[in-house]
Amino acid sequence: MLLHEKANQAQELLKETGLDCWLIFARETGIHPDPGMELVVGADVVRNSAFLFVAGGQRVAITANFDVSNIQATGVFKEVIGYDEDIKQTLLGVLQRLDPRQIGLNYSTDDVTADGLTHGHWLLLNELFRDTPFAARLTSAAPLLSRLRGRKSPEEVNRIRRAVAITEEIVGLVSGQLKPGVSERQIADFVQSEFRRRGLASAWSWDSCPIVNCGPNSDVGHCSPSNDLRVEPGQLVHIDLGVRQEGFCSDLQRMWYVRKPGESAPPANVQRAFKTVSGAIEAAAAVLRPGVKGFEVDAVARKVVVDAGYPEFKHGLGHGLGRAVHDGGTLLGPRWPCYGSMTQRVVEPGNVFTLELGVMTEAGFVGLEEDVVVTATGREFLSSFPRTPVLA
Amino acid sequence: MLLHEKANQAQELLKETGLDCWLIFARETGIHPDPGMELVVGADVVRNSAFLFVAGGQRVAITANFDVSNIQATGVFKEVIGYDEDIKQTLLGVLQRLDPRQIGLNYSTDDVTADGLTHGHWLLLNELFRDTPFAARLTSAAPLLSRLRGRKSPEEVNRIRRAVAITEEIVGLVSGQLKPGVSERQIADFVQSEFRRRGLASAWSWDSCPIVNCGPNSDVGHCSPSNDLRVEPGQLVHIDLGVRQEGFCSDLQRMWYVRKPGESAPPANVQRAFKTVSGAIEAAAAVLRPGVKGFEVDAVARKVVVDAGYPEFKHGLGHGLGRAVHDGGTLLGPRWPCYGSMTQRVVEPGNVFTLELGVMTEAGFVGLEEDVVVTATGREFLSSFPRTPVLA
Repeated sequence: MLLHEKANQAQELLKETGLDCWLIFARETGIHPDPGMELVVGADVVRNSAFLFVAGGQRVAITANFDVSNIQATGVFKEVIGYDEDIKQTLLGVLQRLDPRQIGLNYSTDDVTADGLTHGHWLLLNELFRDTPFAARLTSAAPLLSRLRGRKSPEEVNRIRRAVAITEEIVGLVSGQLKPGVSERQIADFVQSEFRRRGLASAWSWDSCPIVNCGPNSDVGHCSPSNDLRVEPGQLVHIDLGVRQEGFCSDLQRMWYVRKPGESAPPANVQRAFKTVSGAIEAAAAVLRPGVKGFEVDAVARKVVVDAGYPEFKHGLGHGLGRAVHDGGTLLGPRWPCYGSMTQRVVEPGNVFTLELGVMTEAGFVGLEEDVVVTATGREFLSSFPRTPVLA
Repeated sequence: MLLHEKANQAQELLKETGLDCWLIFARETGIHPDPGMELVVGADVVRNSAFLFVAGGQRVAITANFDVSNIQATGVFKEVIGYDEDIKQTLLGVLQRLDPRQIGLNYSTDDVTADGLTHGHWLLLNELFRDTPFAARLTSAAPLLSRLRGRKSPEEVNRIRRAVAITEEIVGLVSGQLKPGVSERQIADFVQSEFRRRGLASAWSWDSCPIVNCGPNSDVGHCSPSNDLRVEPGQLVHIDLGVRQEGFCSDLQRMWYVRKPGESAPPANVQRAFKTVSGAIEAAAAVLRPGVKGFEVDAVARKVVVDAGYPEFKHGLGHGLGRAVHDGGTLLGPRWPCYGSMTQRVVEPGNVFTLELGVMTEAGFVGLEEDVVVTATGREFLSSFPRTPVLA
């Protein structure tokens, strides 16, 4: 069971990161889904709840009585303590018994999937710990949490692999829809009908998944498909899409060149752009392996693009992919302030990344996005990575 | 458009609460959905983004360039500024221009829907504001945010009303399913098939919505229906269910007494329990009006139950209901520490609450939950509130 696998991994990571105790402090997780909860708790809670993993192996959950049986049912916590009116005495009692040297909490200035604790809940915890030794022992559990999320187990990788496969299957069906005059909106509707038919959630907001771009006047940002922009011969169609299946996401960009009558291949500028984009992904993949830093991988792809005379892409080359479509942890991106320290972290076996970039041409946007898993010595593509432009 | 209605209401609330500026600071809202965002922004963002509402009427959004068109599309913000690498200079520039006396942020120790800012993001904001006058001007926007969420507009109330109506329609169909031998799981499967048929999401976690209880041995907490506990003559069937439709939730508890052969009415103990539960809801509803404090309403219901000799229920009588099933704001509950100050707030026109409680009997759980909206002078029931036990 995935939950137990991750709970055991958390226990190992306590030792590896030198953290004595990891405390998930959460409430109303239906509204505030702490990304740490889904890894090792796997159920929602309502009132203030505490989930403790201790380096010595102990695991204790404290939650409102009406949430106890849900937590017990997972079997992750040997000790599940219920309360009615106030968590304070129970929580302090457990901490006095365990007496951890530090207490790691889910916060991080830059790794968003390690930042589940709200600021109000931080303040409340400090109130509960006032005049106890525990307030001074609070620290960030981000080093543990980003590894726990980033190092995918074989089963986690398999789920992503299956999400990618079903997405490619849908991409395959899009080709048949790309007749001149079909609008971005119609293409999106077709993709979403295929999502629905298979019971798939979109990997991000339904309103802008897939992103569809017909021709050079379409906005390549996160926005809704247009009713006015349509498939035109001599132009490109580009889509960015992802699904969530079995709790895990895919994230792909694919594109087609729509031939004019008599054309058998895209014009030279499209071919050159495609070669640059696919070449940049290939070059980055060639250096992607355990131990390399995120920004080093990004720099390789960025150089290919800039050396070819295109403007550099205004985002990181690749983000973590998993339960969330932007899964946190090491980022394959430039050392821009918006990314904090995430681009300076090292790549580890089991990490899953996107490799994505694009350049604009007169025919439209040439963009590709592949999904790869880092192996012990390199990387494996989970997606099909087209090496030549697909024609429509 | 609901988004504009709420944005205008926010503008009014800045004046009412004496706050000079409200700042929503958010990122990766697909993972961390700040409950303030859905009220007035209505789109997801990826990189660090700032949404400012100023008492003078100005509204400014700052977001990554690729999110700009999504934010512009809503029309809520006259000024939408994009950035690529770092939000810092843009955000400081806007604040220098607006020069607000205080900057209200989404955090609260107890009102969970006013607590969208993560602790890591709070730390980051303080880093961005270091050596500026703005760090010292940060405060909580919870007084604004809890009123903004709590005071439902007529359209918001209508959506809740429709969510309640469709839930009651499904409850009506459950009666026909309650044959002896049918399991809790089968009842839940039937309810969920009706959810699916109507394209309804569950108001809380799908795994435990509906909660189903057959007889006295069923766990009345938040847990999954059992395969082993079944409908039995002489016992009660109780369900707790809610749906999300048009972005708004319902939350109801309903129950049936399953007659033994020859019985025409429930036994006296069930009738007495039902009268106590429905009487407690009726008594509380009678005092529910603008100006009363949350704990005062709870106390009325609690007294009816205790005076009748039953143990008091281990939760608040009623919670806010709206976009979230536990919608934050004033809570109709006892002054227990777990509820913070939310039970000491006043009831306002436009608030929507549940009124819910139950007592255990030898035949099973007697529980009811109604949904009510507070009017200018009292309250209106949005749900049907059965005054006698329903027979099956």
